[in-house]
Amino acid sequence: MLYCVEMEVNIPETWDEEKIKDYITREQATSQKYQKSGEWVYLWRVAGQYSNISILNVESPDELHKILTELPLFPYMDITVKSLCKHPNAIRESMI
Amino acid sequence: MLYCVEMEVNIPETWDEEKIKDYITREQATSQKYQKSGEWVYLWRVAGQYSNISILNVESPDELHKILTELPLFPYMDITVKSLCKHPNAIRESMI
Amino acid sequence: MLYCVEMEVNIPETWDEEKIKDYITREQATSQKYQKSGEWVYLWRVAGQYSNISILNVESPDELHKILTELPLFPYMDITVKSLCKHPNAIRESMI
Amino acid sequence: MLYCVEMEVNIPETWDEEKIKDYITREQATSQKYQKSGEWVYLWRVAGQYSNISILNVESPDELHKILTELPLFPYMDITVKSLCKHPNAIRESMI
Amino acid sequence: MLYCVEMEVNIPETWDEEKIKDYITREQATSQKYQKSGEWVYLWRVAGQYSNISILNVESPDELHKILTELPLFPYMDITVKSLCKHPNAIRESMI
Amino acid sequence: MLYCVEMEVNIPETWDEEKIKDYITREQATSQKYQKSGEWVYLWRVAGQYSNISILNVESPDELHKILTELPLFPYMDITVKSLCKHPNAIRESMI
Amino acid sequence: MLYCVEMEVNIPETWDEEKIKDYITREQATSQKYQKSGEWVYLWRVAGQYSNISILNVESPDELHKILTELPLFPYMDITVKSLCKHPNAIRESMI
Amino acid sequence: MLYCVEMEVNIPETWDEEKIKDYITREQATSQKYQKSGEWVYLWRVAGQYSNISILNVESPDELHKILTELPLFPYMDITVKSLCKHPNAIRESMI
Amino acid sequence: MLYCVEMEVNIPETWDEEKIKDYITREQATSQKYQKSGEWVYLWRVAGQYSNISILNVESPDELHKILTELPLFPYMDITVKSLCKHPNAIRESMI
Amino acid sequence: MLYCVEMEVNIPETWDEEKIKDYITREQATSQKYQKSGEWVYLWRVAGQYSNISILNVESPDELHKILTELPLFPYMDITVKSLCKHPNAIRESMI
Repeated sequence: MLYCVEMEVNIPETWDEEKIKDYITREQATSQKYQKSGEWVYLWRVAGQYSNISILNVESPDELHKILTELPLFPYMDITVKSLCKHPNAIRESMI
Repeated sequence: MLYCVEMEVNIPETWDEEKIKDYITREQATSQKYQKSGEWVYLWRVAGQYSNISILNVESPDELHKILTELPLFPYMDITVKSLCKHPNAIRESMI
Repeated sequence: MLYCVEMEVNIPETWDEEKIKDYITREQATSQKYQKSGEWVYLWRVAGQYSNISILNVESPDELHKILTELPLFPYMDITVKSLCKHPNAIRESMI
Repeated sequence: MLYCVEMEVNIPETWDEEKIKDYITREQATSQKYQKSGEWVYLWRVAGQYSNISILNVESPDELHKILTELPLFPYMDITVKSLCKHPNAIRESMI
Repeated sequence: MLYCVEMEVNIPETWDEEKIKDYITREQATSQKYQKSGEWVYLWRVAGQYSNISILNVESPDELHKILTELPLFPYMDITVKSLCKHPNAIRESMI
Repeated sequence: MLYCVEMEVNIPETWDEEKIKDYITREQATSQKYQKSGEWVYLWRVAGQYSNISILNVESPDELHKILTELPLFPYMDITVKSLCKHPNAIRESMI
Repeated sequence: MLYCVEMEVNIPETWDEEKIKDYITREQATSQKYQKSGEWVYLWRVAGQYSNISILNVESPDELHKILTELPLFPYMDITVKSLCKHPNAIRESMI
Repeated sequence: MLYCVEMEVNIPETWDEEKIKDYITREQATSQKYQKSGEWVYLWRVAGQYSNISILNVESPDELHKILTELPLFPYMDITVKSLCKHPNAIRESMI
Repeated sequence: MLYCVEMEVNIPETWDEEKIKDYITREQATSQKYQKSGEWVYLWRVAGQYSNISILNVESPDELHKILTELPLFPYMDITVKSLCKHPNAIRESMI
Repeated sequence: MLYCVEMEVNIPETWDEEKIKDYITREQATSQKYQKSGEWVYLWRVAGQYSNISILNVESPDELHKILTELPLFPYMDITVKSLCKHPNAIRESMI
């Protein structure tokens, strides 16, 4: 099942450059792990914002939650989750 | 260039069933025209809402505007437009 | 999978008593159909509001969408949908 | 009487891992105490969010307040409280 | 148990003076019925707004809902409901 | 003249238990001073929230401001102030 | 006592030019009545908006409510009311 | 002096095609009158929205108000007005 | 030209009493400087809030900006600025 | 292609004067670099606010993102991005 997830990052002001770099590196590794295994289908940057719009294809809400909470930056993000389903006007057979 | 567009439909209360059907049919034709010609890449239904999340791939903002304003329901929709760009953590070469 | 859905009803001002009664009767029949078949697990009234909080247990987002859009009052409701999953602190084995 | 309570957790940025673990352990103990004694009927995680939706069955608003303010994370949560009552369309005899 | 309820009235634009007067008269009768029987403890006008702040003392949320939905203007009001309980700093014995 | 004041408390994260206790004790003393002298008529706790709804009966807005700014927690509260007046449907002679 | 009142006008779409003119003429007469008698101290237009910011000097909230509800456009305005008092840094003796 | 004005158009649902065309033609004439005389410096369409962002260069707020209220669609627009001034980092001598 | 400016103060939590006093003293001096020279026409306290509503009469937006940014508390305030012009119903010749 | 970007600056409270000056100097250098090379067409200060409205003319959303994220204050700004296109009523040939 498909989710559209928007993640807006709010890095704490008290973090120094080094801590930020460490989190970003670990964040990259986690998201790329799930891109390679296929759950994380699309990861787009919203132009001009420190936020992304992602399309995730998972077995259940529990799996979605597991993936998102595994992101090191999870506690520092405002996350919007939308459950997607087939649109009657969509001509594609599959949703991705 | 890629846009993520969310369209929330607010059908006027005064419309009767017939008028609604007519608009929905014409809406379908317009969106499928652009799905076939490739600009309208994805069209997903947000579960439980009369709204969709779409990914459009166009040459310019003007082209995006032309496509969206061609939709019969355009005047009756709350539309959010986000310009997308390549995310540094995305492993896909192309954005779609 | 479980959804928590909040539905706030906005009856159009132009409707007369008869039309309202008709919709409410058909709304009741639809919601009770799905309560009997088990998808609609809980239906609570929010005290002092023309809105309800419901817990639905469905196979997919598509099924959720089918049930909600089948409600006659669907076009006249502000609906919030939240995908639920098991809470690490919950002592119940099952989620309902 | 039944309440639907949504709790969104905002862990202070200045907390270290150890402090967070301590709070989460004590939070778990408190919520499980009231799950076992029956007031805290349901505790669901909202997928993708550090928040839960709970159904509490208490004698009075005072009891609700006592339980919620006993949670160690109470000062660090945005809490929404909705008083529930029997829905005219609900086919269940009891509300839980 | 005590509720603080704020009711903001939005009279439909299409109503003529006569219809408005009729509703206001019936609204007065209903609210005064419950003021006399004691559930509706206080009814204050918010200066400069077509809204009131009321304190209701009822047996249950269901009773609150019954009273509010009995108001003819119920479908035309934005209503906020807050469940009240004893404040630790209050020196009054009773809450009203 | 009567005011309905809602005070939502946001204790700074950096405070330790001792500082919090000190402020709460001084807050209690100040609010009870004005409850005893009659300006602070009602002080109710909103169930599940670190906020209160209060009814104050004062000579002028200046007096209201003096009382509220005397509260030690004043700088750490989101405060909503509504000026109340007699409701045409209220059967009570006096407003409190 | 002084109030700062912001009034945003929302003329119903169904009104024709004649009805609008009638309301505007009566609105002018009412506001000028209170400007002449001194309660309505200032009436400014917000540039680019169909709204005004006014300073009213009245005896009580009840008098404020009487004046505002006497305005023919009262039911068609979003009104914000703020109670004003002397600022410690103001060098003027009087508030107007 | 410079203003940045955002105008979001909400055409009433009850208007037919002919009435809409008439308003749009008159709207065009008014805006082009002020573009030619120089007050209306820039008029941009926001992609995907029935709204524009405009830069107006006028003598006073009163002149801004006169121009905007002369637009036939003025009563049917949500308008945001921001007063602009020279930015310390701007390298252009003039603001347009 | 006239501006209505609302300034809501948010003193940083980390400041101690001494630092707060210093800022308030310097803030007073700056605002009184411009009250004496006439630009700052009115300065009112909003009852119950740490905010003020002010009327400033300046030559240009640039002068408004200069005055407001000279306030020591400028970085710690949420500021709303509204450009005012003559109201057609105002009977006063001048706007102040 | 043209973007209208609004940037509201929120300097962290913990920064001292020196750190602020350093960031502002580097911010100025970055924005002036792109003003000189032509992407950053207009940079206006919003009167009374620590924010600016800018018009950027770039090749792609990616280029917009590169420029904005290069600003030292980027992590400390609330940024709104609007994609602009030619307005049918605009008499200018070019959009800038």
